[in-house]
Amino acid sequence: MDVMFMITCGRYIRSILYLLLLISVQFGPHAVEGVWPLPQAFTSSPERYPVNSQDFYFVYGRQSAAQQGCSVLDTAFKRYFSLIFPDHNSGRSASTMAIVRVTQMRTLLRDVSINQHMYLSHSTTRNGHNGSPADRLSWTIYLVPFCVPDNLSISAGKASLNAETVWGAVRGLETFSQLVYQDDFGSYFVNKTEIDDFPRFQFRGILLDTSRHFLPVQAILKTLDAMAYSKFNVFHWHIVDDPSFPYQSSTFPDLSSKGAFHPMTHIYTQSDVRRVISYARLWGIRVLPEFDSPGHTTSWGKGQPGLLTPCYKGGTPSGTFGPVNPALPSTYRFMARLFKEVSSVFPDSYVHLGGDEVDFHCWRSNPDVRVFMQKMGFGGDFTKLEAFYIENIVNITSALNKTSIVWQDVFDYHERVMVEVWRAGCYLCEVRRVVKAGLRVILASPWYLDQPGPTHNWARYYTVWPLAFKGSEEQKKLVIGGEVCMWGEYVDATNLTPRLWPRASAVAERLWSDEKQTSSVDKAFPRLQDFRCKLLRRGIQAEPLYVGHCKHEYQGI
Amino acid sequence: MDVMFMITCGRYIRSILYLLLLISVQFGPHAVEGVWPLPQAFTSSPERYPVNSQDFYFVYGRQSAAQQGCSVLDTAFKRYFSLIFPDHNSGRSASTMAIVRVTQMRTLLRDVSINQHMYLSHSTTRNGHNGSPADRLSWTIYLVPFCVPDNLSISAGKASLNAETVWGAVRGLETFSQLVYQDDFGSYFVNKTEIDDFPRFQFRGILLDTSRHFLPVQAILKTLDAMAYSKFNVFHWHIVDDPSFPYQSSTFPDLSSKGAFHPMTHIYTQSDVRRVISYARLWGIRVLPEFDSPGHTTSWGKGQPGLLTPCYKGGTPSGTFGPVNPALPSTYRFMARLFKEVSSVFPDSYVHLGGDEVDFHCWRSNPDVRVFMQKMGFGGDFTKLEAFYIENIVNITSALNKTSIVWQDVFDYHERVMVEVWRAGCYLCEVRRVVKAGLRVILASPWYLDQPGPTHNWARYYTVWPLAFKGSEEQKKLVIGGEVCMWGEYVDATNLTPRLWPRASAVAERLWSDEKQTSSVDKAFPRLQDFRCKLLRRGIQAEPLYVGHCKHEYQGI
Repeated sequence: MDVMFMITCGRYIRSILYLLLLISVQFGPHAVEGVWPLPQAFTSSPERYPVNSQDFYFVYGRQSAAQQGCSVLDTAFKRYFSLIFPDHNSGRSASTMAIVRVTQMRTLLRDVSINQHMYLSHSTTRNGHNGSPADRLSWTIYLVPFCVPDNLSISAGKASLNAETVWGAVRGLETFSQLVYQDDFGSYFVNKTEIDDFPRFQFRGILLDTSRHFLPVQAILKTLDAMAYSKFNVFHWHIVDDPSFPYQSSTFPDLSSKGAFHPMTHIYTQSDVRRVISYARLWGIRVLPEFDSPGHTTSWGKGQPGLLTPCYKGGTPSGTFGPVNPALPSTYRFMARLFKEVSSVFPDSYVHLGGDEVDFHCWRSNPDVRVFMQKMGFGGDFTKLEAFYIENIVNITSALNKTSIVWQDVFDYHERVMVEVWRAGCYLCEVRRVVKAGLRVILASPWYLDQPGPTHNWARYYTVWPLAFKGSEEQKKLVIGGEVCMWGEYVDATNLTPRLWPRASAVAERLWSDEKQTSSVDKAFPRLQDFRCKLLRRGIQAEPLYVGHCKHEYQGI
Repeated sequence: MDVMFMITCGRYIRSILYLLLLISVQFGPHAVEGVWPLPQAFTSSPERYPVNSQDFYFVYGRQSAAQQGCSVLDTAFKRYFSLIFPDHNSGRSASTMAIVRVTQMRTLLRDVSINQHMYLSHSTTRNGHNGSPADRLSWTIYLVPFCVPDNLSISAGKASLNAETVWGAVRGLETFSQLVYQDDFGSYFVNKTEIDDFPRFQFRGILLDTSRHFLPVQAILKTLDAMAYSKFNVFHWHIVDDPSFPYQSSTFPDLSSKGAFHPMTHIYTQSDVRRVISYARLWGIRVLPEFDSPGHTTSWGKGQPGLLTPCYKGGTPSGTFGPVNPALPSTYRFMARLFKEVSSVFPDSYVHLGGDEVDFHCWRSNPDVRVFMQKMGFGGDFTKLEAFYIENIVNITSALNKTSIVWQDVFDYHERVMVEVWRAGCYLCEVRRVVKAGLRVILASPWYLDQPGPTHNWARYYTVWPLAFKGSEEQKKLVIGGEVCMWGEYVDATNLTPRLWPRASAVAERLWSDEKQTSSVDKAFPRLQDFRCKLLRRGIQAEPLYVGHCKHEYQGI
């Protein structure tokens, strides 16, 4: 008994893909533990259908915008086939997995605006093939019109997954993959299910810091895998900082050859960066690069003499250096060339400029900087000097058609940017202040997962209410999402994964799901435990939430 | 230019092993970062000798007690050859590594008393071969008389490592392996060095909890590797507890078939246990099993009906169960049979009986227990009932020629045991109380590494002074060591290794090294950072202490 799985992508209902799988209706034990993060609307029943890997493959629908050759979905089909059937020793070729007819595609990730509501959402609706035999399950992914929730529907006769974009289809495949489960005898099943879904926030990020410790590319790729499983869609790459400059610039190769921990083994080559970006893209994950300045730039100074401010003590240079020197024209020429390269290497339409924690002591000590301050009429107000600097950098990136994101520290000075709120304390006060000014905001404060503290306390990260401030609906829409920050002081490839997962998944549900349906820690706990076991099964070294076990424990030690 | 490496084991100076390696004197950059834990006496100089893996092998000395066929040292030679030369693609056979002549051996780990001062220590002294050419480095491990520190001496003409026991020789090989380093071109060197060494405490343990989460055997073996690198010598296997009973008993197979998380995949078979014990033995690590009772036994009840106390509510059984029922003769018959098996399976002369955190509520609720209390004349004092129970279990294990260790909770009741102090607060007050009573004590309180908190705060574990209480020298000698506890509520194979290492190594130095030489956190920090890089190089997923890098980062993600 073959069953069709049809995925359709496009602004209009066009079938993309038929998935053939062996299905018969059964009423077995209700083993479905659900989907993480929780879909917006989710119903399932004990009615279940066996799924046989031998008879399972993906087929693009006839009317689909995307067809075979769409690398995003072609790759997603392969990836999810392996994730759905981890025991399957695949002998089949890709060509037998999908029958594809392309009519239209939008697969450049940068084409998808960060503020588009349906970005990376997915939806599924039952398709209308009345001709399907009763024992066939057909799936369809549609590209649905803006603001119509995606839908996933599994029933006795058919199952369909419909999404507006290929990225939505990728999210829908993740949802489907979590619904398939194995019984104790190794047989696969999927239950009758109906899902309407879309993400609550469009920006769901994870920051990795590759300066305080170098993360091998493999560790980044593995993190991208796990991000996709939790439907994160932004990898914020805090690539350089004080301790090291691992980005190998083609324009300024000395930055890494002199500023990295090691010029050969602890760098990201252009090829490495391309690999990360293209790998992330196939998971529907944007790569947001951060080149933080004017502070946090100690390592930059090693390969770019004259860039940093010489600090003075008692009227003479002390030999130490402070933030980037904002008083020199050469600084802006350097930054223009660097960001020109960065804009080209990182295709995303956004770039993070940092701007946090600038210490004014060194600027204040430097006589040339003080002369510049007088000339510019800043008096003794170094925040004006900082604003001047950031203004110049924003102008540079704007001219490169990039939208800038900055840390909250420099929000006061600029209004053409998106603001990331990171400081502890009343972070919602700060969020409110930013949206009142009409700027878009990303919330990071409550999600510093690198911090020492109760490492297992996922509930602390779960019970965050990003919109619990007084403001208009319009203002609340300016909160475009949130971000998990994994700073690198105490984190490298040895502990990155268990420190991130499954705690970051708790954040993922907060950013994806309906708040009212996910306000209970007690209800979330067994679902998150189950999801963590799924992560283990997929080789993600996710740490335990509490006493217990998974059917398949982590064996990779 | 060949150089001899001679190891001699025995109570008298008998050469065991000659190690041939190519040596020439050089004065290179002083790259020796030292040894962790710090030897009792350690001097090194910039004079260094190249070490070539092609010309390096171990030879037992003529007068050695141990000779080829001594599995402990034969295995240690192989293991340390690979650890010393991680880049070496070995084509050589074991027989070319060592020339061996046995005269006497003591290789049963259980033969070495836990309270023997030199247990698992090592010593090295320069041997007396005047005939060695100046360009030969010879090493000798001697089995030295009791209380003479082991010595390791590397000089232009010779190098020797002398230890009293084979276990000391294993520790000496660890020391030697840490002294060999690679320059930037991949060449190996060892510096002129002189070391006298012995452990400060004879009991240096790590507790793993395999009940709250199941740890695959591979995770345990990996931990044993890392323990040996830090010179830990006791693996305290907290094998069963409330949540699960993974030990597969041959006498009572229902205990695991009904009490484990899964009767097939989440158990330790007899073969698994033998494998762990023999693997640990080859590293000079004892396996101390803990079968904790009468509390912490919920999982026992599933496979052994009638063992646990039925709790009552309102005069009738509530359906729940409490601690082991101390009022029934069948309890002691069961325990006698179980511990008879345990004593045979675990060859160590010590067994941990637990005895912690017994909740009296259930005993108090049970009318049969109360009748028994009256009959025994205990009145309403349930500590007397607990003491009665523990007394019986100690009698059982004593009859099996085992020495019992108990948690501090039951110290008040028994004097034939060793006491492990685990409660927080003034733990040294408790230590003092125990040694005043003339009992030996193991300190665990300050070393609960599983606890939430600043996970990177190794210094907190380093700055513990186990003997900083008022007491006589004789009393202080009763503090036989300490133990890192890695309880399993939030720990399994996904996060065990980064949570243990290198923080447990900080404890290792406290337990091995001279306190006066290791009281400074600042001095220890760079040495521990270097040691952590050595752990990474050996494939141990040890987390970073702070910002920085290692030449060889962890790649195993």
